[in-house]
Amino acid sequence: MSAIARTTLLLAALLPVLAFAQEPAKKPYRSAKEIIDAAPASAWRDLDPANTLYMQLPAGRVVIELAPGFAPQHVANIKALAEGGFWDGTSIYRSQDNFVVQFGDADADDPAKAKQFPANAKDKLSAEFTRKSDGVAFDQLPDKDGWAPQIGFTDGFPVARDPKTNTMWMTHCYGIVGAGRNNAPDSSTGAELYVVIGQAPRALDRNLTLVGRVVKGMELLSAIPRGPDPMGFYEKPEQRTPIVSIKLASDVPETERTPLQLLRTDTQAFRDATEARRNRVDDFYQIAAGHIDLCNVPLPTRDPAAKEHAGK
Amino acid sequence: MSAIARTTLLLAALLPVLAFAQEPAKKPYRSAKEIIDAAPASAWRDLDPANTLYMQLPAGRVVIELAPGFAPQHVANIKALAEGGFWDGTSIYRSQDNFVVQFGDADADDPAKAKQFPANAKDKLSAEFTRKSDGVAFDQLPDKDGWAPQIGFTDGFPVARDPKTNTMWMTHCYGIVGAGRNNAPDSSTGAELYVVIGQAPRALDRNLTLVGRVVKGMELLSAIPRGPDPMGFYEKPEQRTPIVSIKLASDVPETERTPLQLLRTDTQAFRDATEARRNRVDDFYQIAAGHIDLCNVPLPTRDPAAKEHAGK
Repeated sequence: MSAIARTTLLLAALLPVLAFAQEPAKKPYRSAKEIIDAAPASAWRDLDPANTLYMQLPAGRVVIELAPGFAPQHVANIKALAEGGFWDGTSIYRSQDNFVVQFGDADADDPAKAKQFPANAKDKLSAEFTRKSDGVAFDQLPDKDGWAPQIGFTDGFPVARDPKTNTMWMTHCYGIVGAGRNNAPDSSTGAELYVVIGQAPRALDRNLTLVGRVVKGMELLSAIPRGPDPMGFYEKPEQRTPIVSIKLASDVPETERTPLQLLRTDTQAFRDATEARRNRVDDFYQIAAGHIDLCNVPLPTRDPAAKEHAGK
Repeated sequence: MSAIARTTLLLAALLPVLAFAQEPAKKPYRSAKEIIDAAPASAWRDLDPANTLYMQLPAGRVVIELAPGFAPQHVANIKALAEGGFWDGTSIYRSQDNFVVQFGDADADDPAKAKQFPANAKDKLSAEFTRKSDGVAFDQLPDKDGWAPQIGFTDGFPVARDPKTNTMWMTHCYGIVGAGRNNAPDSSTGAELYVVIGQAPRALDRNLTLVGRVVKGMELLSAIPRGPDPMGFYEKPEQRTPIVSIKLASDVPETERTPLQLLRTDTQAFRDATEARRNRVDDFYQIAAGHIDLCNVPLPTRDPAAKEHAGK
């Protein structure tokens, strides 16, 4: 081997070291799961039992977090309906593929058979499609969105915001719970509710009052057999899924509550986990998307006892 | 009533007429359904039986349109597997909420139990994540997309395109069928397939070979009970959904085929229907979105005998 060759080899061997010395130290990639598992206790929040619904189905419990900040009137009415046992014995009477399941009183439109509201529940509310955004905390995503000028999270819910009109609204992502209505914008009461089970139908944003989000038990709703086209309303009452009861968590003894924490969306752990999903680097991924859609951002939950997150 | 008041009233009555006379005649709004129902016969195309799979489940038939233009090697292999009866007696062995169902040979990873491929099926293929876009017909949507520079339809499939790299690829929309793989990019054969049943996981675009789309029977896949977290693989074989058979439509007698037509995406009817969804004007909608996401665009189908579209 000539001296020149040896010098070249020596230089080549030194080059990576030099390059490394000049680059800022790069953090190794951590997966979203690793980031979430390492999140401090302060990054997690407990569900507020006074704003949590337990929907008991024969197959198990669905847990819904209510959004009083977005729909104060509807949420108040939903609480009155739950406390009055309105939904006990009603059903999931609609399941439309790639769209929604809907539940409540299947006979609501028939005055002769419709279930009575509890005395303190109202049968008329204002529409709550949007709210003022001034002064409302908003954990904004940097990602583009076709439906709205800005997207992000408020109180842990996926939301969109329009600074020009000073408004914000919850978005129709998977698992979001909305109040069904007739053509009149103020015709929803919260008694008939739907849950998104397919590709986010965001054309409905700002056209309906959204009241909360399923935080546990989505698989009990999303896998319910579909009703017939085009709307998914079952033809026969026996095809409906019975609702044993819907109660406020605060009305259930503490020992019977579902222990559940949610990762706060205003934390570094949440931002880091979202970035890890936006730009995945692992043995499987060949190309990182460099982007994430609002409705693709998982909102991790965990059982505080198990200290295990259920986020994907 | 004073003369002034009467004049004012008269002017007020005339104003709308004058305004109307100066505006160009506006077409009345037609719903997507009205547009599709009025589409000429030429706007519809028949499924090609040589590129159509029938997946027979106990609950009914799922119809899959294959995409040879995007994954020629995988589609050829899938045809060889179907002709050799590879999937008959296999199962849907995974159902992960808001993500995918997956099917094929549940024992594929166990060399002792794995099912043999038919003689003319290959066990090694190249990855087909993207294709060259030069000269390929592309019905572009004007809408913004966060994941790709351009979006639209080719051969009736939802696709994205990047003019800078001269590439295009199918996108992970609801109902899209992909080929499962291990970490090696070229480890898919088409024997293990998945179908998207949730919010479009488009971070997977360009990371997997997509082979087609479910055009009928999605509700038979999407409502299958979910397997356990985090991946949805069932723990017990009896929880799997048996696959009676998967056959090419061309291998099924004509009288037993599913009559099905799809609305061509290169037609005025399709463009008009999409625009009617982008900007809905009806008794229900208060605000038109002015936008539609690629994976929200329905791809209407109809039974040519019934002349009824099943598009939503």
